[in-house]
Amino acid sequence: MKKYCFGIDVGGTTVKMGLFQIDGELLDKWEIPTRTEDGGKAILPDIASSVLTKLQEKGIEKEEVAGVGIGVPGPINAEGTVPHTANLGWGYKEVTRELEELTGFICRGGNDANVAALGELWKGAAAGHKNGVMVTLGTGVGGGIIVDGKIVVGTHGAGGEIGHIHVDDAIPGFCGCGNQGCLEQVASANGIVYLAKWMHREAPCDTSLTIESMSAKDIWDAVKAKDNFACEVAERFGKYLGLGLANIASTVDPEVFVIGGGVSKAGTVILDYIQKYFVKYTFRGCREAKFVLATLGNDAGIYGSAKLVIEE
Amino acid sequence: MKKYCFGIDVGGTTVKMGLFQIDGELLDKWEIPTRTEDGGKAILPDIASSVLTKLQEKGIEKEEVAGVGIGVPGPINAEGTVPHTANLGWGYKEVTRELEELTGFICRGGNDANVAALGELWKGAAAGHKNGVMVTLGTGVGGGIIVDGKIVVGTHGAGGEIGHIHVDDAIPGFCGCGNQGCLEQVASANGIVYLAKWMHREAPCDTSLTIESMSAKDIWDAVKAKDNFACEVAERFGKYLGLGLANIASTVDPEVFVIGGGVSKAGTVILDYIQKYFVKYTFRGCREAKFVLATLGNDAGIYGSAKLVIEE
Repeated sequence: MKKYCFGIDVGGTTVKMGLFQIDGELLDKWEIPTRTEDGGKAILPDIASSVLTKLQEKGIEKEEVAGVGIGVPGPINAEGTVPHTANLGWGYKEVTRELEELTGFICRGGNDANVAALGELWKGAAAGHKNGVMVTLGTGVGGGIIVDGKIVVGTHGAGGEIGHIHVDDAIPGFCGCGNQGCLEQVASANGIVYLAKWMHREAPCDTSLTIESMSAKDIWDAVKAKDNFACEVAERFGKYLGLGLANIASTVDPEVFVIGGGVSKAGTVILDYIQKYFVKYTFRGCREAKFVLATLGNDAGIYGSAKLVIEE
Repeated sequence: MKKYCFGIDVGGTTVKMGLFQIDGELLDKWEIPTRTEDGGKAILPDIASSVLTKLQEKGIEKEEVAGVGIGVPGPINAEGTVPHTANLGWGYKEVTRELEELTGFICRGGNDANVAALGELWKGAAAGHKNGVMVTLGTGVGGGIIVDGKIVVGTHGAGGEIGHIHVDDAIPGFCGCGNQGCLEQVASANGIVYLAKWMHREAPCDTSLTIESMSAKDIWDAVKAKDNFACEVAERFGKYLGLGLANIASTVDPEVFVIGGGVSKAGTVILDYIQKYFVKYTFRGCREAKFVLATLGNDAGIYGSAKLVIEE
């Protein structure tokens, strides 16, 4: 009888780990360091060892464990293989096969942004929905597309790479991906600062913001204080993100969009700016999609990873 | 033992019908008129009657039939219900439930553009692929998204409404959907003519085309004859469609794009223009997606509908 599973979220500095009941109750969570030296060869053994130690500590039998889900910061295909994960030092690696050998459990893998989306649809802001899209506005712009309760992994593990949706030829410079005009250039934490600097350069104006040293938080604080320039930046941010999400809606028609990541800490004000343009640009039949802020925070990854090994 | 199934494609004028072996071999196809009068109340009984007559004619037992799949020209949800299908005279209608009662068979329904996509991935240009996107460039621009061998229906039956992806604020006038800047305004058969007229109005120039009375075919013929203006129109068409499909790729990361509909009869020249901009705009990881022309033509709908009732 399977009662438990593990959800693992591998980051560049720490590995977040969770022990769950298969109904989704989080029983314990902890972290271990991510040892990226030597091509990251210790990462999976460290995880396996931590899983097996936790079982002993809790007096759980191996037979009671449904499996181990793992989220990684990069593309991973449906077979659980990564071509290359720079943050972890990994080249080509059969992640789930190796972790299965190390633990003796069934393992399933996913991209970190994708599993966060699955987590929010399972136990977070969009619990109970089977069709949803999560957008993570952090250092970059990540995303996850969930259709019928499953992650859209994509042919090359690039499903949900919505930070690289092209939104405007006019955006100056290059995205980290090498393209020009990506959503990530103007909607991540750095992106909104980049957007504000660009707009101020094109049309200088009075503002309470210190253009040279403002942060994303400063901009949203200025929006809340009704600074005119900051509000213009928020409009443009909302236009780009609303447009990108509108085009996703015309493609997969989700019930709900979950907005997470550091930028989302500004609160519901950002939803208003996004939704205004979403409604303008999306197909009429998709306009009723809901917009909610993520609620699981940094735990979304362990929830979603755990869900990978739980059948409906 | 289930050996046969039916694929039905309901259009505004005729209903296309196909009898298939469950391995996908088309045994017989025929058409009946679509009687849209009186709220289209005869359509489903006509289809049921034609199905049952065909069984008698072929000496097939009811026990040998896996089911009946039906494609309709409008949104239809996962339960087989349509809110309203203007072309057929239908208001709210439980299409598959009614057809099940009339035939005694299991019935499954899909949107016509979506089932055409499923057909092309099952037995057409993209046979053997599980993840693909079909774009139908006809009177409008339709689409279908197939993920893991299944149609992405969407919450409101609007999955694959890719004609309503927003591509440019500058496009004059309104799309049939009420929005501005939709792909359909510039990439359907009428759309490319609209695009050419707009471009010629903005920047008049010499061309072999007769601007007042050109057709989409005239434009592609002029492209093949190296008319400069026609080639500029083709570039812009390629840019819009390449951009729209690039953003779809960054969302669902398909293996293959199938281009169908009347406009695709211009041949592989259109793929070159689309792919040029697709590669420019899409996320690096998705650039290897293949582009192919549809091969099933008007039969794509009956193939895809039939596939709806066949399990893997």
